[in-house]
Amino acid sequence: MTYELYYWDGIQGRGEFVRLALEEAGADYIDITRQSGRGRGTGAMLSVMRSDSEAHIPFAPPFLKDGDLIIPHVANILLYLGPKLGLAPDDEGLRYVVNGLQLTITDFVAEVHDTHHPIATSLYYEDQKEEAKARSADFIKERIPKFLGYFERVLQQNPYGAKHVAGDALTYVDLSLFQIVEGLVYAFPKAMSSYRSKYPLLATLHDSVEHRPNIARYLKSDHRLPFSTEGIFRHYPELDMEAS
Amino acid sequence: MTYELYYWDGIQGRGEFVRLALEEAGADYIDITRQSGRGRGTGAMLSVMRSDSEAHIPFAPPFLKDGDLIIPHVANILLYLGPKLGLAPDDEGLRYVVNGLQLTITDFVAEVHDTHHPIATSLYYEDQKEEAKARSADFIKERIPKFLGYFERVLQQNPYGAKHVAGDALTYVDLSLFQIVEGLVYAFPKAMSSYRSKYPLLATLHDSVEHRPNIARYLKSDHRLPFSTEGIFRHYPELDMEAS
Repeated sequence: MTYELYYWDGIQGRGEFVRLALEEAGADYIDITRQSGRGRGTGAMLSVMRSDSEAHIPFAPPFLKDGDLIIPHVANILLYLGPKLGLAPDDEGLRYVVNGLQLTITDFVAEVHDTHHPIATSLYYEDQKEEAKARSADFIKERIPKFLGYFERVLQQNPYGAKHVAGDALTYVDLSLFQIVEGLVYAFPKAMSSYRSKYPLLATLHDSVEHRPNIARYLKSDHRLPFSTEGIFRHYPELDMEAS
Repeated sequence: MTYELYYWDGIQGRGEFVRLALEEAGADYIDITRQSGRGRGTGAMLSVMRSDSEAHIPFAPPFLKDGDLIIPHVANILLYLGPKLGLAPDDEGLRYVVNGLQLTITDFVAEVHDTHHPIATSLYYEDQKEEAKARSADFIKERIPKFLGYFERVLQQNPYGAKHVAGDALTYVDLSLFQIVEGLVYAFPKAMSSYRSKYPLLATLHDSVEHRPNIARYLKSDHRLPFSTEGIFRHYPELDMEAS
């Protein structure tokens, strides 16, 4: 069965965390909104969300359809796919650890979004630019070190070694952390300029994911869209500054 | 085995979503930071978080300890406890639906927090009051209707009936929605003044949870702390206004 991924067309966004897992596993999937035809395109996504008869409507994209099952939220999709794609630990307890780590990434991604939209998602960036500067300054000073420092510690304290965040094998959280680093380096190049010396284990993990054959092939493909100021991670030079 | 809940003392906060599930089920648990003695108190919580040897350190409270397993994040704790407490569907697919609904609540709670802290968690409310007014105005105009309207639709479209958000029996999401309504009515009484006519199914769900015997007993007990301007839901009159 082909997995159907529903997410906004034209950006990496939150959908990218799911795509990286599907690509790493070489899974059979389609990006519904990037195709045309019956049951495809952005209209098909919106009609699921707006359905007045569907039993399990998602609040927002991304969501995954696997047969009749509709699964919303990145962490939930990865929880579901992880064991099927060989990207979750066999140990059941460790799966809750992995889910917890992914949920910390979820929180961090929401904070990344709010660096450019601190007041209202319904307003343009230009209408909240001053507040965005204040929020980004705090984000660079307090939040990047808090989150990246936490993941560095998680790697350091993994009893199976620092190559992965949990257990002795690759999980979807490792892939998501690659994306976090990629996104931050794009959005905040000055703030991230010395991240390799501050978070060496995270940098090593990032590089190891980047060079995995399926990931490397995907990153070079047309299917990997570039970062842009339409996505979650946005580069606005006026929001970036050297980390202290 | 007694469940150990770790969360900041003195507030309901995010820990309350977990407490409601434990209380409804009559589970054996202790609130570690509200007790004193060896391995108890806020110090005990911080020492888990700051440990440099613990394999699975949480990013933030709340977290649950069940034996050696440490489980962070509200939705993750409820995912773990749900089946054990009889508060999750038997059907595996429906468990992902329920988890997705809880994650939408997670996102909403983060937005509730940001109504009073739109710029920085590290600053006082008083230092971001003007921005908080702007964010709260958008929250009342756009976000409350979007989220509550969504849950009203979910109840409406549940093929098993509108008494519960998923399936034909109480789940932890129903309990969390009770808490969402309680918190919003406390924090934004003007904005919520007509919520019963706008979201009648949600109001009915709220009332049915409130009158469940174990919940009613808990709400009357000393263990249920009052809402306050230290928690997630805060009542600052200057942030509240009638919904349009």
